[in-house]
Amino acid sequence: MHTISEYRDEFIAYLDSMRITKEPRNLYEPITYILGLGGKRLRPVLVLMTAEIFNTDFRKALDAAIAVEVFHNFSLVHDDIMDDAPVRRGKTTVHEKWDINTGILSGDAMLIMAYQLFENYEPNVFRDLAKLFSKTALEVCEGQQYDVDFETRDDVMLPEYLKMIEYKTAVLVAAALKMGAIVAGAPDEAQQQMYNFGLNLGIAFQLQDDYLDVFGDPKTFGKQVGGDIIENKKTYLYLKALNSESEVIAKELEHLYSIHPKEAEAKINAVRSIFEKTKADQATKTAIADYTAKAFEVLDDMDINPENKELLRQFGENLMNRTV
Amino acid sequence: MHTISEYRDEFIAYLDSMRITKEPRNLYEPITYILGLGGKRLRPVLVLMTAEIFNTDFRKALDAAIAVEVFHNFSLVHDDIMDDAPVRRGKTTVHEKWDINTGILSGDAMLIMAYQLFENYEPNVFRDLAKLFSKTALEVCEGQQYDVDFETRDDVMLPEYLKMIEYKTAVLVAAALKMGAIVAGAPDEAQQQMYNFGLNLGIAFQLQDDYLDVFGDPKTFGKQVGGDIIENKKTYLYLKALNSESEVIAKELEHLYSIHPKEAEAKINAVRSIFEKTKADQATKTAIADYTAKAFEVLDDMDINPENKELLRQFGENLMNRTV
Repeated sequence: MHTISEYRDEFIAYLDSMRITKEPRNLYEPITYILGLGGKRLRPVLVLMTAEIFNTDFRKALDAAIAVEVFHNFSLVHDDIMDDAPVRRGKTTVHEKWDINTGILSGDAMLIMAYQLFENYEPNVFRDLAKLFSKTALEVCEGQQYDVDFETRDDVMLPEYLKMIEYKTAVLVAAALKMGAIVAGAPDEAQQQMYNFGLNLGIAFQLQDDYLDVFGDPKTFGKQVGGDIIENKKTYLYLKALNSESEVIAKELEHLYSIHPKEAEAKINAVRSIFEKTKADQATKTAIADYTAKAFEVLDDMDINPENKELLRQFGENLMNRTV
Repeated sequence: MHTISEYRDEFIAYLDSMRITKEPRNLYEPITYILGLGGKRLRPVLVLMTAEIFNTDFRKALDAAIAVEVFHNFSLVHDDIMDDAPVRRGKTTVHEKWDINTGILSGDAMLIMAYQLFENYEPNVFRDLAKLFSKTALEVCEGQQYDVDFETRDDVMLPEYLKMIEYKTAVLVAAALKMGAIVAGAPDEAQQQMYNFGLNLGIAFQLQDDYLDVFGDPKTFGKQVGGDIIENKKTYLYLKALNSESEVIAKELEHLYSIHPKEAEAKINAVRSIFEKTKADQATKTAIADYTAKAFEVLDDMDINPENKELLRQFGENLMNRTV
C-alpha cells in the first residue's frame, strides 16, 4: 500500500500530464485554472486508495479519480456563481476572474469531461461508473437546491438538514470510495459497504465543519471562524439550539439570525453562548461521534485484510481529528 | 414506417408519461416547464426515424430521443442566461420566470438526466450512446464559446464561422441520426453515413436560418426578420459581404454593424442592399445548396432500402424548403 501523500502526488502528476490546451482557450483556460488551485484532493485520493485495497494497481483508477475531482470542481465553479463568492482557496473565483457566462460554460464542459474520463474503462465498468456518477451528480444538484431553499425558509427541520448535507457533501465522498471498488472489480456487497463507510464519514465530516466554524481554532481552521453565523446559515448547531425548551432563547436566536451588524464579533459571541447554553454544541459533538462510529462499524464488518482496514480507519480518524 | 407527426406524437406521449414530480420542486419544476414549451421536436423525431430505418421498433429509441431533447433544452436554458434572453418559444425563459441560479442548477440537472436516460440500454449500446453524447455535448459547448468569442472579434474568418455553426448546431442533428442507428445496432459504416448526412444537412439548415433572417417572409419565418442585423451578428452573409472587393462597401458595412439605432428599419434595409450588391445573398444560397447536395450524396451512397432513402430525402427537402 501507498501513503496518502504518495497517492496525492501521483494524482497531481497525472492531472498535470493531461493539461488541457484545447481550443477555444476561453472555454478551457478556466478549467485548467480551477483544477490547478489545489485543495486537499481528498476525493481522488479515496478513489485510488480503495482500488488498491481491493488488490488492483491504483494507477488503473487514475481516470476515475480525475473524473471525481473534475466533477467536484465543476460544482465549485457553479456554486460560486450562485453564492456570488469572490474567493476560492485564496484565489479569485472563475466567474470573478473571467465572467459569469464563462463560469457557466466552462462548468458545463467540466461536467461532460468527467463522463469522458470513464471511457477508458471496458463497457461494464464504464456503465457502473457512469451510473453511479449520474446518480451522485444529480443528488449533489438536489443538495445544492435544498441549501438554496433553506436560506429563505424558517421551518427547516433537522432531518431535512441532514439530508441536505448528505446530498451536497457526503454522497460524493461515498461515490469516490465505491468507484475505486468498481474499478477493482470488488463484489457488489463490498462496493456497497465502501459507499456506506464514506456516506457516514462524509456526514460526520460536514457536521464537524459546522462545529469548527463556531468553536474551531482560528489558527488551524481553514476558513473564517464565525463565518456561518455572519451569514445566518442554518446549521445543525442552529437548528438544535432553536429546538431548545426555552422560547425566550429561541426568539433571541431568531433575532440574531435576522441581523447583519457591521461588526460581527458581538453577534458571534452571543450566538456561540446560546449554542453552549442550549447544549447544541454537545448535541452536535454527539452526532459527529455517532456518524463516525457508524462509519467504523461498517468498516469492521468488511471482508478486507486487517492492514487495509486499519488504513481506512486511520484515514477516517485523521479526517475527524482536525483541531477543535 | 411511420410519419413524422406520428413519431412526434409518440415522443410527446412518452415525454408526458415521465413527468418529473421529484423533490426539490424548485429544481425539477423548471425542467418540466422548459420541456413542455414545445418546439418542432426535430432532433428526437430523427432518432426515432433512424431506428426504424434500420428495422428496429422505434419505441426502443424513445429513451435516446428524450435524452437528445433534454440535452437540447439544457443548452437553451444555459444559452438564454448567457444571452440575457427574456423569451423562448413565445414564453418567459427559465432564468426570467425563476432566477439565474435556478437556470444554472436546473440546467445542470438536465445534462445529468440526459445521461441517465441511456441507462436503459445494455452496456455496449449504453457506452456507444454515452460516448457519442459526451463528444457532441462538448462540441456544442465549444460552438457556444466560439459564438461568444466572435461577438467581440472583428477578424472572424469564414471557415471559423462554418466550424462554429457545425459545432453549435449541426453536430447534435448528426448525433441524433447516429443514435437511432446505434440503438438499432446498425453497422459502423452506416452509423457514420447517418452522422455525415445529418452534419451536412445541419450546416445547410443553419446557413438557411442566416439567409431567412434577412430575406425571409415575416409571415412564415418564426423569428423577427432582421434580428441578426439588429444585433450586429456576424453571419455567413455578413462575412461574405465583408470580403467584397470594394473597400468602400466593407467600411460602410462595418459602420452599420457598429451602431444600434432605435429605429432599425433603415439599417436593416441598408445592410440587406449591401448583401445583394456584394452578391453575398447568392453566395449564401450556393453554400446552402452545396451542403444540401453533400447531404444527399451521402444518402445516395447508403445501403438502406430505397423507400427509407426516399423518406430521409423528403425529410431533408421539407426542412430546406421553408418559405424564402
